[in-house]
Amino acid sequence: MGATLHVCITCRASLAPAEGVPSPGAQLHAALCEAPAPEGVQIRPVECLSACRSGATIALTGPGRWSYIHGPMSVADSGAILDFAAAYAATTDGIVPWRARPALFRKHVIARLPPLGDF
Amino acid sequence: MGATLHVCITCRASLAPAEGVPSPGAQLHAALCEAPAPEGVQIRPVECLSACRSGATIALTGPGRWSYIHGPMSVADSGAILDFAAAYAATTDGIVPWRARPALFRKHVIARLPPLGDF
Repeated sequence: MGATLHVCITCRASLAPAEGVPSPGAQLHAALCEAPAPEGVQIRPVECLSACRSGATIALTGPGRWSYIHGPMSVADSGAILDFAAAYAATTDGIVPWRARPALFRKHVIARLPPLGDF
Repeated sequence: MGATLHVCITCRASLAPAEGVPSPGAQLHAALCEAPAPEGVQIRPVECLSACRSGATIALTGPGRWSYIHGPMSVADSGAILDFAAAYAATTDGIVPWRARPALFRKHVIARLPPLGDF
């Protein structure tokens, strides 16, 4: 079982909601789904990751792996997000080596969580 | 299998490290371990939840449950944290009803994550 890239589709990125305009989170999700997902990665929309002050927000999870929550992210970051999701999926523990992390993912980290059952 | 209360023991809570003084995160972990853990809750120390700007930080996880990351927390919050962990452990999905959440846990939420495999 591979990795899951969760994309918060309710994220407003601190903007007031505009009628008829998808939220920044929904726009990010749409952009990420334009190309085939990287090998071993499933892209899943989620309603609210409760990181509203740091949206748009994404999270990477996977069995036996540390989970990482990143934000703020934007449509312009889509390519970098997919590349990083592929790197995450290629790990066994979810920890992409620090040197291999683009600055975006070094700086825009909201939190991480140990693997479920890792104790 | 019950819930796990992760406590970041490296959290400095924005303070400079002081020689010979445990970090605020380590102090919080020690305070939480002074009494027996609530039923169905395991308390586990973790080195860095990568939420350093919002420390001291805790996280609640469990199989089939949403995970929640909360901070900043302090030793003074220990009793409330244990009560909330017990309420979390009593759920099947990790979602403590909004009305049952103390203000501390409504306001000091850093992020949440869907259950692993919930797709």
